[in-house]
Amino acid sequence: MIKPRTPPGVMELLPPDQIAFQRMLDVIRRNYERFGFLPVETPVMELSDVLLTKTGGETERQVYFVQSTGALGKAAEGGQGEGLPERAMPELAMRFDLTVPLARYVAEHEHDLAFPFRRYQMQRVYRGERAQRGRFREFYQCDIDVIGKDSLSVRFDAEIPAVIHSVFSELDIGAFTIQMNNRKLMRGFFEAQGVTDGEVQALVLREVDKLDKRGEEHVRATLAGEGFNLPAEAVDRIMAFVKVRSASHADALAQLDALDALGEGNDALREGVKELREVLELVRAMGVPESNYALNFSIARGLDYYTGTVYETTLDDYPQIGSICSGGRYENLASHYTKSKLPGVGISIGLTRLFWQLREAGLLGSATDSTVQALVTQMDAKHLPHCLAVASDLRRAGFNTEVVMEPGKLARQFKYADRAGIRFVIVLGEDEIANGTVTVKDLRREDQFTITRHELVSALRVELAQAEVLQGTHA
Amino acid sequence: MIKPRTPPGVMELLPPDQIAFQRMLDVIRRNYERFGFLPVETPVMELSDVLLTKTGGETERQVYFVQSTGALGKAAEGGQGEGLPERAMPELAMRFDLTVPLARYVAEHEHDLAFPFRRYQMQRVYRGERAQRGRFREFYQCDIDVIGKDSLSVRFDAEIPAVIHSVFSELDIGAFTIQMNNRKLMRGFFEAQGVTDGEVQALVLREVDKLDKRGEEHVRATLAGEGFNLPAEAVDRIMAFVKVRSASHADALAQLDALDALGEGNDALREGVKELREVLELVRAMGVPESNYALNFSIARGLDYYTGTVYETTLDDYPQIGSICSGGRYENLASHYTKSKLPGVGISIGLTRLFWQLREAGLLGSATDSTVQALVTQMDAKHLPHCLAVASDLRRAGFNTEVVMEPGKLARQFKYADRAGIRFVIVLGEDEIANGTVTVKDLRREDQFTITRHELVSALRVELAQAEVLQGTHA
Repeated sequence: MIKPRTPPGVMELLPPDQIAFQRMLDVIRRNYERFGFLPVETPVMELSDVLLTKTGGETERQVYFVQSTGALGKAAEGGQGEGLPERAMPELAMRFDLTVPLARYVAEHEHDLAFPFRRYQMQRVYRGERAQRGRFREFYQCDIDVIGKDSLSVRFDAEIPAVIHSVFSELDIGAFTIQMNNRKLMRGFFEAQGVTDGEVQALVLREVDKLDKRGEEHVRATLAGEGFNLPAEAVDRIMAFVKVRSASHADALAQLDALDALGEGNDALREGVKELREVLELVRAMGVPESNYALNFSIARGLDYYTGTVYETTLDDYPQIGSICSGGRYENLASHYTKSKLPGVGISIGLTRLFWQLREAGLLGSATDSTVQALVTQMDAKHLPHCLAVASDLRRAGFNTEVVMEPGKLARQFKYADRAGIRFVIVLGEDEIANGTVTVKDLRREDQFTITRHELVSALRVELAQAEVLQGTHA
Repeated sequence: MIKPRTPPGVMELLPPDQIAFQRMLDVIRRNYERFGFLPVETPVMELSDVLLTKTGGETERQVYFVQSTGALGKAAEGGQGEGLPERAMPELAMRFDLTVPLARYVAEHEHDLAFPFRRYQMQRVYRGERAQRGRFREFYQCDIDVIGKDSLSVRFDAEIPAVIHSVFSELDIGAFTIQMNNRKLMRGFFEAQGVTDGEVQALVLREVDKLDKRGEEHVRATLAGEGFNLPAEAVDRIMAFVKVRSASHADALAQLDALDALGEGNDALREGVKELREVLELVRAMGVPESNYALNFSIARGLDYYTGTVYETTLDDYPQIGSICSGGRYENLASHYTKSKLPGVGISIGLTRLFWQLREAGLLGSATDSTVQALVTQMDAKHLPHCLAVASDLRRAGFNTEVVMEPGKLARQFKYADRAGIRFVIVLGEDEIANGTVTVKDLRREDQFTITRHELVSALRVELAQAEVLQGTHA
């Protein structure tokens, strides 16, 4: 007898949680499609030489390699006489994000795609992380990207916050702010502080990125201390800069104007300000409320990768959760696979981690309503054909319906429906069958009524519609 | 520069095909939920000792093992001095079906599940198959199972064909027949032919299972020849038996009656006939048309696993595709993980292979209509805020809408919409913006009209509704 168990670092859910998770996936997908993104799925396994072209040491250490039984056998044989090669890299590896597979996909299918290419992808990715609470070795990423050929207007950067707003409004997990910055603006600002060398800028940005984790004093000391040797005024200005958070749309524009005034002869700063201003104006034109977006000059994101607009999204009441949706603009997606220049902009939602964090924070219950909407009870085995016929009516009308297939006590069947979160219980007893009626109990509204069988579907539709009116709507 | 490419044996789709594939997944999921099945997802990776408990040689050779970079390094080090262990089984392996993970899941979460437990699972599975056209190393399985605790009424076996009927009617890929048999009935019949030994029965069944591949003469010769040594009359009766296909519901019952008459004192035959009769009657009570199901006494399925009802589904006009949905009743799901007796019944649709076969047979185009329903054109950069506002209206109303973000020639934008399968093109020119109107071109109906902006949403809804009326409906 083997103890049934999952490996560490994976999230497996019981059905009520799985339903809640699936509903989040559905909301994200629906909103991605609403903004014109097309579905893509790629294989979990990629060729190792293709997958690991681009990655540095840290990521590579976390890669999972895949070998069939046959390949393992061969490796063992080959190794016997002469010792294993230093670094026998298996042929296949599992994707650790959706960006490298996107780069491979776009480069491979370049001539079959229309650019700008707008794709969404919602699949699991794999990282051999150290096992730790809240760290996952298998997790969902839900990504969108727009990829241009040769060029891609900064206007596309404005669509991204509109999508984020749409997704998180419908997910309904609390107030959120889409925080924006621009890497050119940052670069220009640091140049103005005398930090002109690209690598030193990157190091300063890396320090600034630690502000939340290490605290202001630590960062100040590092920037003024050995290595950086920045003058006190420069450190002051840098610290003031990275604390900028706009309070409204007008405030955001004013902050940009103020920076612009300092930018005489500083092309990067000017360009960054101009881009961010255009993005802000278009975000407003797309109807995103100004309470849902803000400038945040401390946001840098992946330093080797992003080159323009960058985004992070945080829950206003749960800043400790950190960014729940991040991304930005990059110069060239697939330089390892094609000579074509493919600039893009995109974001990612790490849904497994987000779901886990929301549940930990008590912000997310299991689904209290099942995917099953109606339970047809059965009191006597001879009623079964009637029960099945009523269930067929309901299913044809689009109601997810379960039939109690083995007769039993009605009280137990009600208890089952209640626990399972099934809303409508349909009772078919001797009387009902004799009269061609059904008795409906609506467990949500605690309502009960007896109607003819052919009225059943419309009656349930009315109940559902009334519930929506009572509930208010998200639309 | 690395050539971008996928490993052999995986199916990666361009967006129009991906849309068609996703729609099939959605249909399957919707119908599984309609019948009261609950969603479950399990990790791709399972612990090797858990996953490989149950499997025989063939399957084990096809398993993919997973190792992180760290684990590979350690294995190489360990092997250096003393040679590799004969059979160093990595800790993790990828699931090769959804049945073993279901067994593990049900046993692990036994006390948190309500029985009978009805679950669906639609995920990818992995097999290190020899690379071959139409053979996949990564493919979707879409499974449903009902698992009982201690016992599970044969009535549940009748729900399965109703689900299959519902799924394949909506998938709309042509006429299909759900073929049914019963392993007890088969066993009883073979006993009546003097084949009483269990192992010999299994061997006879295995031969019978080759009828389609090897032909009648080969099977006859094998059964009459050395090894089996069956008398000519027994071979005749066996060949007649395995050729039984019922032509209608009444014919199916008549065939069962005829067998029953032979079954004096043959408990297995009697029991099998009784079960199959009950299943047939309930399948009819659930509204499955008799043209969609039939008896087929040649169907055996996995010989070590199924114990009662077995199902295969074939496309009437494409028998060469083979079974597109198969399964049956089994005695005990999880004997390796729990002492509880967990009988069940289930089926699986191998969607990747089915999709590939349908496409090969020319039965499936790419989706000609995109997920994107409306394209808002842009003729001049200064119109963009108007374009974005109109797009927001459409999205709020539930239309999947793409905006042309960089202005250009209208003809090119129309061409893009046409190629991409976007149905509605919304034109916002100087006149329209000045008058508060929009011009809509419906590329499907080849219709064009100009209306006020606030009429747009209801106008598109009318167009959609008219299209549905013209098209006829599946409901």
